[in-house]
Amino acid sequence: MKAIQQIAFGLESLQLTDLPTPTPAANEVLVKIEAVALNYLDVALATGTYSKELPLPRIPTSDGAGIVAAVGDSVSKWQPGDRVMIQYNQLWQRGLATPATNHIRTGVSTPGLLTEYAVIPEYALVRTPANLTSAEAATLPVAGVTAWTGLMSYANIQPGQTVLTQGTGGVSLFALQIALAAGARVIATSSNPAKLEKLKQLGAHEVIDYKQHPNWYEEVSRITNGEGVHATLDIAGAATIVNSVKSVGYNGFVGLVGFIAGAQLPLDLFTIVGNYIRLQGYSVGSLQSFEALAAAVALNNIHPVIDRIFPVSEVQEAFRHMGSGNYFGKIVIDMNA
Amino acid sequence: MKAIQQIAFGLESLQLTDLPTPTPAANEVLVKIEAVALNYLDVALATGTYSKELPLPRIPTSDGAGIVAAVGDSVSKWQPGDRVMIQYNQLWQRGLATPATNHIRTGVSTPGLLTEYAVIPEYALVRTPANLTSAEAATLPVAGVTAWTGLMSYANIQPGQTVLTQGTGGVSLFALQIALAAGARVIATSSNPAKLEKLKQLGAHEVIDYKQHPNWYEEVSRITNGEGVHATLDIAGAATIVNSVKSVGYNGFVGLVGFIAGAQLPLDLFTIVGNYIRLQGYSVGSLQSFEALAAAVALNNIHPVIDRIFPVSEVQEAFRHMGSGNYFGKIVIDMNA
Amino acid sequence: MKAIQQIAFGLESLQLTDLPTPTPAANEVLVKIEAVALNYLDVALATGTYSKELPLPRIPTSDGAGIVAAVGDSVSKWQPGDRVMIQYNQLWQRGLATPATNHIRTGVSTPGLLTEYAVIPEYALVRTPANLTSAEAATLPVAGVTAWTGLMSYANIQPGQTVLTQGTGGVSLFALQIALAAGARVIATSSNPAKLEKLKQLGAHEVIDYKQHPNWYEEVSRITNGEGVHATLDIAGAATIVNSVKSVGYNGFVGLVGFIAGAQLPLDLFTIVGNYIRLQGYSVGSLQSFEALAAAVALNNIHPVIDRIFPVSEVQEAFRHMGSGNYFGKIVIDMNA
Amino acid sequence: MKAIQQIAFGLESLQLTDLPTPTPAANEVLVKIEAVALNYLDVALATGTYSKELPLPRIPTSDGAGIVAAVGDSVSKWQPGDRVMIQYNQLWQRGLATPATNHIRTGVSTPGLLTEYAVIPEYALVRTPANLTSAEAATLPVAGVTAWTGLMSYANIQPGQTVLTQGTGGVSLFALQIALAAGARVIATSSNPAKLEKLKQLGAHEVIDYKQHPNWYEEVSRITNGEGVHATLDIAGAATIVNSVKSVGYNGFVGLVGFIAGAQLPLDLFTIVGNYIRLQGYSVGSLQSFEALAAAVALNNIHPVIDRIFPVSEVQEAFRHMGSGNYFGKIVIDMNA
Repeated sequence: MKAIQQIAFGLESLQLTDLPTPTPAANEVLVKIEAVALNYLDVALATGTYSKELPLPRIPTSDGAGIVAAVGDSVSKWQPGDRVMIQYNQLWQRGLATPATNHIRTGVSTPGLLTEYAVIPEYALVRTPANLTSAEAATLPVAGVTAWTGLMSYANIQPGQTVLTQGTGGVSLFALQIALAAGARVIATSSNPAKLEKLKQLGAHEVIDYKQHPNWYEEVSRITNGEGVHATLDIAGAATIVNSVKSVGYNGFVGLVGFIAGAQLPLDLFTIVGNYIRLQGYSVGSLQSFEALAAAVALNNIHPVIDRIFPVSEVQEAFRHMGSGNYFGKIVIDMNA
Repeated sequence: MKAIQQIAFGLESLQLTDLPTPTPAANEVLVKIEAVALNYLDVALATGTYSKELPLPRIPTSDGAGIVAAVGDSVSKWQPGDRVMIQYNQLWQRGLATPATNHIRTGVSTPGLLTEYAVIPEYALVRTPANLTSAEAATLPVAGVTAWTGLMSYANIQPGQTVLTQGTGGVSLFALQIALAAGARVIATSSNPAKLEKLKQLGAHEVIDYKQHPNWYEEVSRITNGEGVHATLDIAGAATIVNSVKSVGYNGFVGLVGFIAGAQLPLDLFTIVGNYIRLQGYSVGSLQSFEALAAAVALNNIHPVIDRIFPVSEVQEAFRHMGSGNYFGKIVIDMNA
Repeated sequence: MKAIQQIAFGLESLQLTDLPTPTPAANEVLVKIEAVALNYLDVALATGTYSKELPLPRIPTSDGAGIVAAVGDSVSKWQPGDRVMIQYNQLWQRGLATPATNHIRTGVSTPGLLTEYAVIPEYALVRTPANLTSAEAATLPVAGVTAWTGLMSYANIQPGQTVLTQGTGGVSLFALQIALAAGARVIATSSNPAKLEKLKQLGAHEVIDYKQHPNWYEEVSRITNGEGVHATLDIAGAATIVNSVKSVGYNGFVGLVGFIAGAQLPLDLFTIVGNYIRLQGYSVGSLQSFEALAAAVALNNIHPVIDRIFPVSEVQEAFRHMGSGNYFGKIVIDMNA
Repeated sequence: MKAIQQIAFGLESLQLTDLPTPTPAANEVLVKIEAVALNYLDVALATGTYSKELPLPRIPTSDGAGIVAAVGDSVSKWQPGDRVMIQYNQLWQRGLATPATNHIRTGVSTPGLLTEYAVIPEYALVRTPANLTSAEAATLPVAGVTAWTGLMSYANIQPGQTVLTQGTGGVSLFALQIALAAGARVIATSSNPAKLEKLKQLGAHEVIDYKQHPNWYEEVSRITNGEGVHATLDIAGAATIVNSVKSVGYNGFVGLVGFIAGAQLPLDLFTIVGNYIRLQGYSVGSLQSFEALAAAVALNNIHPVIDRIFPVSEVQEAFRHMGSGNYFGKIVIDMNA
């Protein structure tokens, strides 16, 4: 089968290669990969900036969707032709994460999905919502589940509450769409007037240009009559956390999920203690959360926002685009193109 | 001021009378009542079928909305002209109910709202959502809050889940509207084809004619591929509880809020234990829940369903209509008409 | 290996037999069973009063503890010599139950534990607390986990709260011990003065003779100054539920776990609705709950109450004793005696 | 009546004076203060290091207990002779805090308790547990409730879990005692061998000398076999937060309640995100939490740890001792001595 392998650190080392097609074990499913979506971690792993200890060669990427091609002998839940998405933390089925549930991560501790075929345990698949293309479905496992876990599993957003979304990456746009589906009000930020306009078109009730308002928590406060928002997911870490903390109100929720702009948090206790704020670190979510997200996406006809779809022949360009930080939504690679 | 007084049990004893306009104490607000909504309890109290121990004469009804006419000396939260709704359990502000929080119930342990003016403690008012008329707002304090408490405070409905609503009374129609605002799927029941059509127009994804399907849990099971719904509010008690319990799935929630059709439950433990079902008795909700509902109603532009608005001169007819059980939504009395 | 097989329904058909010792598959563990504990279900299954559809011959019983004798090729968590207890719902690892997690129940859908050796998936074992004998450990998987799930996972008992325990069966005595470990006050019932004395010796703060007080909720009310208890686990169903519901206070919790005395509940809605009572059906619990229980048992040096230990040669007597209903604590069968 | 007044910032300005005895309004209670306990905030307010905007003269201190001397006309819950403790956030009755519930804080926005008599709203009192002296009871409202809210309302500690307590101040010693009452394991830290010995005598299962182990999270990890603890309350802020975060395990809880050693947190996101850690800022707790604590203290016969009781004539020495940081438990002022 065709696959993209990384033979050394650096994006130029992502090369098309030929590998033997794997055979599913008794409880495994062979999935023909239709599309993969990129995450920031993919770039960090490929360039080696995150860690150089990953064994090479490896097939990169964690996020994907495809079609069941064959099933192992004991598999009864799936059959060839089923459209499926692949769970990131494969062993994290229900409840809270443990070190054991997070042991196996697709594309990190297993071969990744930039390949024609992948074998996946039968319990680590979720049925693709009927309203989604495979390109759209490929964006759910990491970015979609991360947004869902923060807003619905932790912060438990309800109709009439207010959610602040930060920027135009995949997690934030899913947060916007999930919050709207849950009947919440959305305040969205970006530094770019064209993107702010797109955010409004997606349904954001209010937008804030954070370049014009470096202390954008003040705009949040103005818009919410001083009450602050109920929840926000902080993506950028060091660059945004001070504004995040000051943007939420009493008993507010700040999901800590990313550190694109640095992992050292210059936090001041006064606001956190005085306003009863919860800072919750977490990463992605359980299969149960993924299934809940899939049901919500189907029922509310949510279409994930795709910035651009690259053919697999332009995989390096796709990674570079991800690295640029200049996108609106998810970057997808079409495995059939 | 004009007021409707009940001088004996029986609807014919509801009479227009003249009473001195009350004066607000330091922490009270004088509210000019614009509209009241009827609840089943109002009829039971007025006819004496619920209890004959209520001291007479009394001004009936619990549900209402109006305009602040004057405020007591220490009131700073409200000012004349503010549009307000009146909390039912006046002392139940936040958290779970206690015997103490439920001591004071509007129209039961205080004078009711079928009157030109009522004095209400400043802490027992909620601002009327800007999108509602006073007639609409009058329907929220009991029926709206009951639906909200069940679905959002207890069952915590999330996008993609399924809610079963039963019949076309006020609580059930609010449950339908709240569930839709929360991104959930709604299955609604009625015994009447015309009402089933209206339920669809309100947004119900599926409807069931329970006259045609006396074991309507089987229809619920069929529609949900055998999974059952996440939550339902049981209004009628003895007549519906068996179907309610069999309609919810694993870890399902059955809110027990009414006993229109009898309070003796013929429950079978096997389904309840085998399916991990929660039966939760409760009644109305806290001021905090009311405020959350008001925010959801405003943001999602929910308009409560009103069956019919009676002028205050036809108060007896309004009560009789409530007693007939044949309505679609709330019955309201316009205090200005 | 030696095993007890049931070849027909009826306790007299429980017969010692010789069977081939099973071999663990790659992810399985071969456990030398040291002790099994009996549950009411074992008697109902053996006599056929619960269902006659169980395929025969079968090895009965669900509750047991032993020593790892051998492990499959891929097992790294366990090694020979480890002392272990066996999870009842083998697939229910974490979070809430689903139909899928409850598919495999030890001794019901798998061979039971009245045998020298059993093969168990590696994920369905919990390490035996160091302070317990195997006879004691054998009592935890069903009765102990049922009590834990009700009081700690659902009702979330905290220090200073009050728990009502009903009778002297295994679940109720575990409930007493767990509630005490959690710093709660315990009111315990029995119909027998000698057992009431034993309940006091176990630490019950108050006891009630329910034969002398058929409306024992009145005693509960007197003892709690009219406030009622926070939680109780109802074991007997039809015979006790009315008292259970009237014994809990506002927002009280009634765990529905058994139907020894009938499954038809004569429930009255008024108390349930008026007091915001939660009735929660459930059964046993997850591996995570089992592990939490095991940690609590070890740290608080809880010793399960054993009514009597029978040698395996007296297995029929053991089942008859279980069926008599006249015991104080768990009935255990020593597989080595 | 006699009272201690602060006429300028600085401890030397705390002076005994004579003031008119206040008269309770209709819903107020006149409490004869028996004892007050000091908190770090009292010293910061008295010296002016926290803020110089407090209007002077003022009666300081927030924590106290006494005896009802007289009640207002509408008070029915209390009568003269009742032993009572005084709630800190007087309006925070139940549920989560809001800006409104935290508006009135005893001794900050009201006159403090270093006085012979104080008037307190009837709803802001909790009955003193029968097992406590007034000196002991005086320590509960702030330090006791802070520990309870963190461990029981937020972290929901259960039997068998592990709690880490930091140092020997009032909140940490209450945390130790509450955790033990809840059946949890306690690891306690101090820099002083004699205090470590006292911590063991109070029931700590393990102790750590943090002077000998500046990276004391490593000791925590060793003691817990690498699993970390379930919860800790961080008192000192900047000086301890890094160790706190690294001491809790997966899904661990870090209560942020103090900043004795600085409010700037040098937090690193990797551990927080990777281990799903919750950082929860909060302060003290609701009346409901206070009542729950009082019930737990009575049932489990918890006696708060008092470092030293000063007579009211030595009030300045008491404040200086509080400022020294060198104490084991609470510092109390006996108003009768």
